Amino acid sequence: MGPALIQGASRGLGLQFCRALASRGTTVIACCRDPGGAEGLRSLQSEHPSLIDVVQLDVTSEGAVQAAAQHVQQTHGKALDLLINCSAILSPSGRGETSLRDVSMKALQDTFTVNTFRPTGDGKVLWSVAAGRAGKHRQAGSRGQAAARGSGGQHVSQGGVHRRVDIIVHLQTTSWVGWYSYRMSKSALNMATRNLSIELGRGRKKVICVALHPGTVDTALSRPYHKNVPADKLFSPQQSVGYLLNIIDGLGIDNSGKYYGWDGEEIPF
Amino acid sequence: MGPALIQGASRGLGLQFCRALASRGTTVIACCRDPGGAEGLRSLQSEHPSLIDVVQLDVTSEGAVQAAAQHVQQTHGKALDLLINCSAILSPSGRGETSLRDVSMKALQDTFTVNTFRPTGDGKVLWSVAAGRAGKHRQAGSRGQAAARGSGGQHVSQGGVHRRVDIIVHLQTTSWVGWYSYRMSKSALNMATRNLSIELGRGRKKVICVALHPGTVDTALSRPYHKNVPADKLFSPQQSVGYLLNIIDGLGIDNSGKYYGWDGEEIPF
Ligand SMILES: NC(=O)c1ccc[n+]([C@@H]2O[C@H](COP(=O)([O-])OP(=O)(O)OC[C@H]3O[C@@H](n4cnc5c(N)ncnc54)[C@H](OP(=O)(O)O)[C@@H]3O)[C@@H](O)[C@H]2O)c1
Ligand SMILES: NC(=O)c1ccc[n+]([C@@H]2O[C@H](COP(=O)([O-])OP(=O)(O)OC[C@H]3O[C@@H](n4cnc5c(N)ncnc54)[C@H](OP(=O)(O)O)[C@@H]3O)[C@@H](O)[C@H]2O)c1
Repeated sequence: MGPALIQGASRGLGLQFCRALASRGTTVIACCRDPGGAEGLRSLQSEHPSLIDVVQLDVTSEGAVQAAAQHVQQTHGKALDLLINCSAILSPSGRGETSLRDVSMKALQDTFTVNTFRPTGDGKVLWSVAAGRAGKHRQAGSRGQAAARGSGGQHVSQGGVHRRVDIIVHLQTTSWVGWYSYRMSKSALNMATRNLSIELGRGRKKVICVALHPGTVDTALSRPYHKNVPADKLFSPQQSVGYLLNIIDGLGIDNSGKYYGWDGEEIPF
Repeated sequence: MGPALIQGASRGLGLQFCRALASRGTTVIACCRDPGGAEGLRSLQSEHPSLIDVVQLDVTSEGAVQAAAQHVQQTHGKALDLLINCSAILSPSGRGETSLRDVSMKALQDTFTVNTFRPTGDGKVLWSVAAGRAGKHRQAGSRGQAAARGSGGQHVSQGGVHRRVDIIVHLQTTSWVGWYSYRMSKSALNMATRNLSIELGRGRKKVICVALHPGTVDTALSRPYHKNVPADKLFSPQQSVGYLLNIIDGLGIDNSGKYYGWDGEEIPF
């Protein structure tokens, strides 16, 4: 497999994806906001110096996205095969708002910026890298051909012709109740996954876009809620990433635009 | 019926809701960003001076929301029965983005602010007005009792006790393809409707929250796309608002959290 780009790689599921992919020999472009503060990532890098490329990326800034895309292209060529978005917050306070009185314009803006706008921007990074166009303005109508020049991941047989396929993964949540900013932002992210799957499924070079639910995982994000989760329902990041990579390994273009649980079951959007 | 608050009242469906409600004798609090520039609203006000109260409101500013809520409470008491959100943009450019290359962080932010964050804030206005708490900070746990003191709209029989019910309506879209910012923002708004229906359905004073799809309507919003719509599928605002008020008139608490088309058919979220 060509390089994978993990966004939100400093901890939790993102860091574990980096670990698991590097241990398979996959080159990982590990993007995080503050590489200096990302101790787990730095120690992983010292274990696998040739496989882990840590890139500072805060995609809330569009300039940063372009710069990171250019770095990826210059350092790793166009062969980006997998992008996994692992960034999210429950709200700026670190808790889901169960009442409207806790919801503010700022909380909505900040949560959507991290959970929704940022991963949508990431689709743009991968797309421009895959298309060999990082930093250039695309011409309308040229996507299909330009994208076909990029190299890619799995081979998919379509009409007898083998084509290369890249994969974009968004991590999702299942429960549709409570927590205003988080649920709303993930709902919008579902729509982004679906829109991306339509647009990136159209050209000659297809990109698979899926949403995956990791289960309830023992990370900083879910920590305030662990006491309500039965022990056998609280996964370690190792466990969850094991399940998710298993799903990712088996993805084909027919899975694009869909949403799967950690157990591989399709979840209706 | 007690007063109705229409948000995004300067034109299109919002203006037509004001017209239709005033012609029934309903008091209308018509909120728009720029009352001075809202000619249709001003002429409606001169027709029904005692029924139309035009309020300047840009709910992107939380201070403005509180000020408007206080005005409503002082002028009309607590008896707000219906709130209809009619504000939306396809994107800041006035067109839906069919390609990621047209999507920018700013386009996402601006579209979500109008389409999603703003209507969620409106729920907050109605809620604080209905609860008689505009401008005051609410105490946790006091909602049920406080809200029960507000006067309300329809009577709903529940366990033999009649209770008053208010209604919040969000206007929605059905098609799940294309157009990044608009679809994503409406998808998040769906979740807001659902969350609101859960929270506001819990207290003793229940508030019905629904999403309604107006059909494709001849307004400024959809104008760029009219040429692809068969004439009999393009409603006038009069037609669409007629259908929607018919649905609103028949709503009960069991409909809360659901999504209905202009023809009254339930649409899966
Ligand atoms: N844990 C669960 O039970 C669970 C359940 C369902 C879904 N998920 C989803 O799984 C994904 C990974 O979450 P996790 O459990 O691994 O959580 P986590 O340990 O809290 O990691 C979240 C990541 O989000 C980024 N992040 C945090 N705050 C941020 C901010 N203010 N601005 C920008 N980025 C910020 C960080 O990226 P940097 O590397 O840039 O610092 C961090 O690596 C999320 O999408 C989450 O919604 C988790
Ligand atoms: N027309 C359709 O075919 C159609 C189809 C499906 C759903 N809808 C939905 O129906 C609702 C009403 O739309 P419409 O067709 O009546 O459209 P419209 O005539 O364009 O009216 C939209 C309203 O949105 C507000 N607005 C516009 N730009 C804004 C901005 N930049 N910032 C804040 N507010 C802004 C305006 O409120 P002010 O009064 O404050 O100026 C205006 O009254 C929307 O939610 C729309 O998504 C319409």
